[in-house]
Amino acid sequence: MYNKNFLKKIAKLEQVPFSLIENGVKNGTIAVLANTNKDLTSPCAVGTGLKVKINTNLGTSTENLKFENEKKKLQTAIDSGSDAVMDLSVGGNLRKIRNDLMRFSSVPLGTVPLYEIASEVERRKGNIEKMTIDDILDVLIKQAKDGVDFFTIHAGILQNAVKYIRKNKRVGGIVSRGGAILARWMYVNKLENLFYENFDKILEIMKQYNVTMSLGDALRPGAIADSTDDLQIGELRVLGELVKRCRKKGVQAIVEGPGHIRLDEIAKNMRMQKKLCYGAPFYILGPLPTDIAAGYDHIGSAIGGAIAAMAGANFLCVVTPAEHLRLPTVEDIKDGVMASKIAAHSFNLLNFKDDWERNRKLSQYRARRQWEKLYPLTIDPEKARRYRKVEGKISGNACSMCGTFCSIKLSEKCGFLNSR
Amino acid sequence: MYNKNFLKKIAKLEQVPFSLIENGVKNGTIAVLANTNKDLTSPCAVGTGLKVKINTNLGTSTENLKFENEKKKLQTAIDSGSDAVMDLSVGGNLRKIRNDLMRFSSVPLGTVPLYEIASEVERRKGNIEKMTIDDILDVLIKQAKDGVDFFTIHAGILQNAVKYIRKNKRVGGIVSRGGAILARWMYVNKLENLFYENFDKILEIMKQYNVTMSLGDALRPGAIADSTDDLQIGELRVLGELVKRCRKKGVQAIVEGPGHIRLDEIAKNMRMQKKLCYGAPFYILGPLPTDIAAGYDHIGSAIGGAIAAMAGANFLCVVTPAEHLRLPTVEDIKDGVMASKIAAHSFNLLNFKDDWERNRKLSQYRARRQWEKLYPLTIDPEKARRYRKVEGKISGNACSMCGTFCSIKLSEKCGFLNSR
Repeated sequence: MYNKNFLKKIAKLEQVPFSLIENGVKNGTIAVLANTNKDLTSPCAVGTGLKVKINTNLGTSTENLKFENEKKKLQTAIDSGSDAVMDLSVGGNLRKIRNDLMRFSSVPLGTVPLYEIASEVERRKGNIEKMTIDDILDVLIKQAKDGVDFFTIHAGILQNAVKYIRKNKRVGGIVSRGGAILARWMYVNKLENLFYENFDKILEIMKQYNVTMSLGDALRPGAIADSTDDLQIGELRVLGELVKRCRKKGVQAIVEGPGHIRLDEIAKNMRMQKKLCYGAPFYILGPLPTDIAAGYDHIGSAIGGAIAAMAGANFLCVVTPAEHLRLPTVEDIKDGVMASKIAAHSFNLLNFKDDWERNRKLSQYRARRQWEKLYPLTIDPEKARRYRKVEGKISGNACSMCGTFCSIKLSEKCGFLNSR
Repeated sequence: MYNKNFLKKIAKLEQVPFSLIENGVKNGTIAVLANTNKDLTSPCAVGTGLKVKINTNLGTSTENLKFENEKKKLQTAIDSGSDAVMDLSVGGNLRKIRNDLMRFSSVPLGTVPLYEIASEVERRKGNIEKMTIDDILDVLIKQAKDGVDFFTIHAGILQNAVKYIRKNKRVGGIVSRGGAILARWMYVNKLENLFYENFDKILEIMKQYNVTMSLGDALRPGAIADSTDDLQIGELRVLGELVKRCRKKGVQAIVEGPGHIRLDEIAKNMRMQKKLCYGAPFYILGPLPTDIAAGYDHIGSAIGGAIAAMAGANFLCVVTPAEHLRLPTVEDIKDGVMASKIAAHSFNLLNFKDDWERNRKLSQYRARRQWEKLYPLTIDPEKARRYRKVEGKISGNACSMCGTFCSIKLSEKCGFLNSR
């Protein structure tokens, strides 16, 4: 897929031996997110043995389509440590927005091509239900040539699932936007999923530019009551088969995962995915362990993400406080990235020396109350500094929590502190 | 300890059978937080088989001692769903502050009596190092009579630990404020911990008013590098022995836990505590799985708390975004309580029907876009409402995330939704 020099560069960026990257890419447990039709400043890889990465979703909606906002969000996401971004725009000139975002993005950028397909079909034919395979392939070729690094393709939702859900219902229905559009198309046309039916044609396009296949989970549960249900697992089995077809064609594949998942089922879900999808990298949205935290879903997502990372998840999609409520603002993006970053970092520090040392050093500065050395090591130096400053100068370098009863000052006086 | 009618009231509040409370209190796996010298509107119990509860720390520091602020924080904590509070004041007229807070608090209130002891000794003798057992008992009697529901007592840090830490050092030293004060006293006086030496006398006082013993973890790690070290586990063993002594004297005991703990050691820590402390309720501060999240430690704490809850933790102490930086403001308290609440609730909904139903109903309203019915079921209706309103009216009850491409509207059109 990629030449050796490029993979060597990736190994260096990832701080792992070249052989780990080479073997991982070969056996499909690692995917490098990098379209070969462009040059990315900070390409990244996801998969077994690598740091857990995070992705931030950006993009206009039909109600809110200012590009400047999305550009600001892109910058905020990258500055806050997002390893990749997705442009999920559905409003405005989609190709222009995407290419502009790509120009400003140093990190890999993914899309859900169905959004542009749907927009195009609606514009030209007046109704998404008239979508044909040519509409699909046109957009895929265009996006692949333009340099998109990974595509979410909802090829796992099949006719039998659409029939099943109509009979058995669900509390949350289908919450994947792409999944719902496709389900509607399948329901009206009484035909099999076009992405599934034409999967090999799609792979040919993606292979040409090394676009990574991100197998979308159209049937992820959108309510705790639907957690790990037959629909979800049925689709996961299809995705596993599609992973094999991707590998056969030489297209890198990652698998997308839930969603709203019971706290006690999160780890199990990760292990199930690894097994059913033959060790493919797992890219998750959440999981959220509760439905009631609207306004704070980034926190539920951090809980789910950290547990998932321990059980094998490789790539976390940022959930912002705006989830379920509105298109995120720049501030929402920041809060969301921070939460995902904490989840990923808490896992990464166990396996990567730089992250471990960052914690150790920060704690050493903390014990010495060397605040100016400490701040740059925190995940948000500006916030840490602002928080501490608000109450003015505190005696003896302590903070306003303990004041003169500062435990670390006492520790120091008694000679308890490690100065190595 | 308590009369049968009172325990029946507790069983009803906890939504569990009376026998569960009765047996739990008898064998020490459940503790009811309720001083018998006062009448509490909302007493609560912590332990095996009950909902995981959360506690919020309040209190002045030596640098910031306005009572009005603390009263506002108390109200915010209770309104946001805190099941108990601790008054950790170290500045101002401590008894007055505590009794005023107790008057306004419908939930159990705990203290670390050492703070008042230290203040008194400093005031009268000029130096905390001159503390005697009489200074300790005076304050304990006063606080128990005044109605404090639980005391944190740092009786587990012993001379051998103080010697050990001077030799072996630690990155974070001692971060427990009470622990550090005691360690300092032990180091200077070359004497055994006064709380340990006089443990039975302390129990006599606490028994009289049914004050619950919360065995403080003076040696909890304050840095990931110190996670689950010999000092921490050594103290935990002492706390286990003290649990037995509490039970023998008829004093309810809970055990306090860490702290900064590696993500992959959190569950292990909980199981270890349950074993070494004979199933006593576990009250944890965090655990925080990273040191670098200053300004966002409430999120790390939510991760740690949820994992801990699954592994047996019973009582979560709120960590606010201000942790490590400053005394929390009212807003910090709100953010911290929300994060802990999400962690506890995500676990509780698995076992308690009211919490489960709240999620199911909310998701049903969400699927129907019945926003006004949905809001009251969220953890912060005001925030959810404010978030959604910011972008004005959205067509067809969707939100500005998807606009016309709303997945749940499509689900509804296709008949995928459960209407039970």
